[in-house]
Amino acid sequence: MDLIEYTPGPDEWAHRFGGYPAQLSVKPGDVLRVGTEDCFGGRVQRPGDLPSEVVKFEDMNPVSGPIHVGALSGTHETALLHDALPELVWFYDIDVEKWTATFRAVRSDFQVTLPLDPMHGTVGVAPPFGESRLVFVPSVHGGNMDTPELRAGTTLYLPVSVPGALLALGDGHARQGEGEVTGTGLESAMRTAITVDVIKGAEPLGWPRLENRDFVMSTGSIRPLEDAFRISQKDLLSWVSDLLRLDVLDAYQLVSQLGVSPVANVCDPNYTFVAKFPKRYLDTSAYGGVHDRLSAIADNYRKSFSRLW
Amino acid sequence: MDLIEYTPGPDEWAHRFGGYPAQLSVKPGDVLRVGTEDCFGGRVQRPGDLPSEVVKFEDMNPVSGPIHVGALSGTHETALLHDALPELVWFYDIDVEKWTATFRAVRSDFQVTLPLDPMHGTVGVAPPFGESRLVFVPSVHGGNMDTPELRAGTTLYLPVSVPGALLALGDGHARQGEGEVTGTGLESAMRTAITVDVIKGAEPLGWPRLENRDFVMSTGSIRPLEDAFRISQKDLLSWVSDLLRLDVLDAYQLVSQLGVSPVANVCDPNYTFVAKFPKRYLDTSAYGGVHDRLSAIADNYRKSFSRLW
Amino acid sequence: MDLIEYTPGPDEWAHRFGGYPAQLSVKPGDVLRVGTEDCFGGRVQRPGDLPSEVVKFEDMNPVSGPIHVGALSGTHETALLHDALPELVWFYDIDVEKWTATFRAVRSDFQVTLPLDPMHGTVGVAPPFGESRLVFVPSVHGGNMDTPELRAGTTLYLPVSVPGALLALGDGHARQGEGEVTGTGLESAMRTAITVDVIKGAEPLGWPRLENRDFVMSTGSIRPLEDAFRISQKDLLSWVSDLLRLDVLDAYQLVSQLGVSPVANVCDPNYTFVAKFPKRYLDTSAYGGVHDRLSAIADNYRKSFSRLW
Amino acid sequence: MDLIEYTPGPDEWAHRFGGYPAQLSVKPGDVLRVGTEDCFGGRVQRPGDLPSEVVKFEDMNPVSGPIHVGALSGTHETALLHDALPELVWFYDIDVEKWTATFRAVRSDFQVTLPLDPMHGTVGVAPPFGESRLVFVPSVHGGNMDTPELRAGTTLYLPVSVPGALLALGDGHARQGEGEVTGTGLESAMRTAITVDVIKGAEPLGWPRLENRDFVMSTGSIRPLEDAFRISQKDLLSWVSDLLRLDVLDAYQLVSQLGVSPVANVCDPNYTFVAKFPKRYLDTSAYGGVHDRLSAIADNYRKSFSRLW
Repeated sequence: MDLIEYTPGPDEWAHRFGGYPAQLSVKPGDVLRVGTEDCFGGRVQRPGDLPSEVVKFEDMNPVSGPIHVGALSGTHETALLHDALPELVWFYDIDVEKWTATFRAVRSDFQVTLPLDPMHGTVGVAPPFGESRLVFVPSVHGGNMDTPELRAGTTLYLPVSVPGALLALGDGHARQGEGEVTGTGLESAMRTAITVDVIKGAEPLGWPRLENRDFVMSTGSIRPLEDAFRISQKDLLSWVSDLLRLDVLDAYQLVSQLGVSPVANVCDPNYTFVAKFPKRYLDTSAYGGVHDRLSAIADNYRKSFSRLW
Repeated sequence: MDLIEYTPGPDEWAHRFGGYPAQLSVKPGDVLRVGTEDCFGGRVQRPGDLPSEVVKFEDMNPVSGPIHVGALSGTHETALLHDALPELVWFYDIDVEKWTATFRAVRSDFQVTLPLDPMHGTVGVAPPFGESRLVFVPSVHGGNMDTPELRAGTTLYLPVSVPGALLALGDGHARQGEGEVTGTGLESAMRTAITVDVIKGAEPLGWPRLENRDFVMSTGSIRPLEDAFRISQKDLLSWVSDLLRLDVLDAYQLVSQLGVSPVANVCDPNYTFVAKFPKRYLDTSAYGGVHDRLSAIADNYRKSFSRLW
Repeated sequence: MDLIEYTPGPDEWAHRFGGYPAQLSVKPGDVLRVGTEDCFGGRVQRPGDLPSEVVKFEDMNPVSGPIHVGALSGTHETALLHDALPELVWFYDIDVEKWTATFRAVRSDFQVTLPLDPMHGTVGVAPPFGESRLVFVPSVHGGNMDTPELRAGTTLYLPVSVPGALLALGDGHARQGEGEVTGTGLESAMRTAITVDVIKGAEPLGWPRLENRDFVMSTGSIRPLEDAFRISQKDLLSWVSDLLRLDVLDAYQLVSQLGVSPVANVCDPNYTFVAKFPKRYLDTSAYGGVHDRLSAIADNYRKSFSRLW
Repeated sequence: MDLIEYTPGPDEWAHRFGGYPAQLSVKPGDVLRVGTEDCFGGRVQRPGDLPSEVVKFEDMNPVSGPIHVGALSGTHETALLHDALPELVWFYDIDVEKWTATFRAVRSDFQVTLPLDPMHGTVGVAPPFGESRLVFVPSVHGGNMDTPELRAGTTLYLPVSVPGALLALGDGHARQGEGEVTGTGLESAMRTAITVDVIKGAEPLGWPRLENRDFVMSTGSIRPLEDAFRISQKDLLSWVSDLLRLDVLDAYQLVSQLGVSPVANVCDPNYTFVAKFPKRYLDTSAYGGVHDRLSAIADNYRKSFSRLW
């Protein structure tokens, strides 16, 4: 396990998925500690800083990357793991010891303390067919999905369209509700430890998938919202059908009774839905157990290194 | 506390909300034990019974009611409580002692046991402006919202458009996933104990709301799905704004970080979204604490009567 | 040809399709001269009259009817014809001799004269399955479709769900653009001459259809707008397939190259699309030529009676 | 007026807007005769050729370009004119002398002759913010709008995001209905004469606009369809407001009564709507009369050169 650190400066940030050369390379099993700026490029510093005034549109939502993912290992599994252990550096309202953020109303006399639940809004790879997409857009290549499910301990599976995949990530949220109804979460620069793997020989992914301890999850990102819902449900029942060797209609019926269907965002250029199925009803591991193996790497990392950089 | 029993036969079922005279009357604090048939009118009895063959469209989804809700008490609160204690009569696969349902695949060799989580898909009152709506339609009057949140212990708030409200309910599901993606849950006839209250003097409800031990919840039922989402979120932030005496933009920001946003159905003539806010961040009770008072009636009922009819 | 006159007063207007008894009866070949009030019930009389102040919601958009349509004739055709010859009585800005309406900007110094192109926004019959729907809603029973295609000389085909159909009409517009993007046309009380027929033995209509001299037209009214589009296109290619004895895929290809697809409204509770196919590519008449026969009645009426009441 | 000819071969076709260097350069007033292949890259040659078998997805819908548009003239107007005089090379069913295409049903015994009405489905420039978009996608940069309004004699206004604009065009249709409901028009290779101009100092375009002899037109391309409709309507009333010096609400009212609103496509990755306003109600020319000037160039070209290459 090599530990690699990468915190690009403003001149090195990417603003599109696709169309950039790789900035560094990691191989399966490495742990990468990556610094990401918040979605405003760090320019919203104090209450009076209006994003529309201090950040140009084309400078919004910078991502750190692209990162070339090498497939040097002899493993035959296929996957990309995000085991994020974010250390927030946002200097105000966040209490890292207590793991809380304090909400203060600005037009009313009210404050309340919320638990942190950090996540990355934007993680993606180069899109298929040579397209280059703005970082704001979630689609088949990942991108700005803005789902709170993309938190520490979650594996994100992304489809590889170019050699090295060209992974990039950013848009950290200290927490976010489902739907991201105001268009922002608790926007935060982050330092995140991730590790990756490459799955070979699997059926190509149609849409990004996620896995955590309790759920396998499919996503769909498109407009209108019902089409995002349908994509996520159809992908999930196809996945459950594979994992349980079930006829797809049987899987459909089972997902219909056990599915959990939180919305991710209804504010981005495409809307994102997540469809979840509880792993306790499965008898096999997805993709040869890659989530468990990468979680073990993450546990080992946590024991070996201080939580804070 | 009067205990009233009401199990209408096929000739007494209603098939629309609105346009029927009341079948019985209850007053606040009464407990009503109501029998409802499944959404197929009990005609799907064995594996070979195809709904499209054994049930005419106009006979689908019968509801028990309408029930005239009397407002005789001097209380100034306003609410309608559903504390359902369903006793399922579906004769196969349901184990009431173990509180499980066994799923058997029909086109694959697979079975699995699921926990029961009973709910009513369809609960509503007479619509405003004298309309008469088919029971399949969820809208401002409630109706076929098909949300698993409408389970035992949940208070449903509905707007009263005619004297006596004319409540009716049906479409019991022994459990259902979020989205009801196949178009059905575990369809079940049910026996359900409910109690009601009438809230006077409150701001008229725009859309049905729910409350359980942990959450206040708003709903929206319309197409397209993003409009259902927007309705539910807007109603929730308005409600949170009232409960916390917050400026609506402050409430918007808070809901954006704490909101839980499960979809209810994406299969009915209107789609339904639910927006939830955790009650632990509130310092007042909704509608003068009617949920707690009616929960106390429910607890008392549970102690006094056998769980099974 | 009997000439029947019917101009109901405020106490006689209907506000829902369905749920009212018939007010009068007409038989095929009769000409009915019907007076309708504007969508504000005639209460917007002068520039300062704001609809939201002078008209209650439940009094909006009154329709004249329901009209019981008798099927006494021995004909075996099936249709309902609207050959409207509207005589506008709106007293200001309308020049009936010149057949113009003068638009005067209210916040700018500008006026322009527009040609009249009168139509009825709302024409419908009792809905199926005993529902009672507000007049604002367009759906399978017709209702508030708000398409400028429903002008004089156009036959409207509606599905009959109850004995006598229970036709009602209102919401006259002196003209309206496609989409009705502000939510209103040139709202006008109208006097309209219509004649009707009843088609027996035809395939039941799924959705309202229209026919004029040059086009057969299908409609779809639902949300979201793409579903309204799909309904109208699917119905049209099914109709063209029948009329040309074409395989449905051949009809699909032909409609794809010849179809004209104007939107009707994107402001009502359901959105309405119209799909048009030019009749010059047909070799048979729809529904046994009922449009031509009823057009002949209309021509005869025009010769026999003054254009103005 | 220089006459430039450009017919790229398969190795020179572009498959994305953005991300390619310019292939040639034209200046305002030049006439460019450009050859474009059909949307299948010319590989569908006979009835048995299924596009899914003979064309790879990434080879579909090739466009000819990008073309660098020079702004060397001293004019201060800004516009891009498409005066297409297409000479179809598809060898079967098209009769260029009679200007017809013969439709032959494949699963029925039927044929009919349709008039040609050639158009380009795909015309666009490099997108803003450095994105590179597949040719299938219509958006703010133009692209695959698939509207039959983009026919000979129509000026298309596109926003310039990079030096030289980098114009490309393709996807010729010998004719197409509104909505392109099967997903294709009469796909044809084309030879098209275009001329261009550059408008300086105008308000940047939000979305592509069109102008022909009778109408100014706005477009919107997004999902869902109602959002595409809203974009096109809002842009049109803003344009009409500018041209008539009207308050925007007055323009809104006027567009609502005079607007023509045909759908363009409901089959592409984004759906496209067109909103039209009749020029006879305007008292000024758009963009300083550039449409008239470029139409004069087109007339001159028609007189000087054979219609067929």
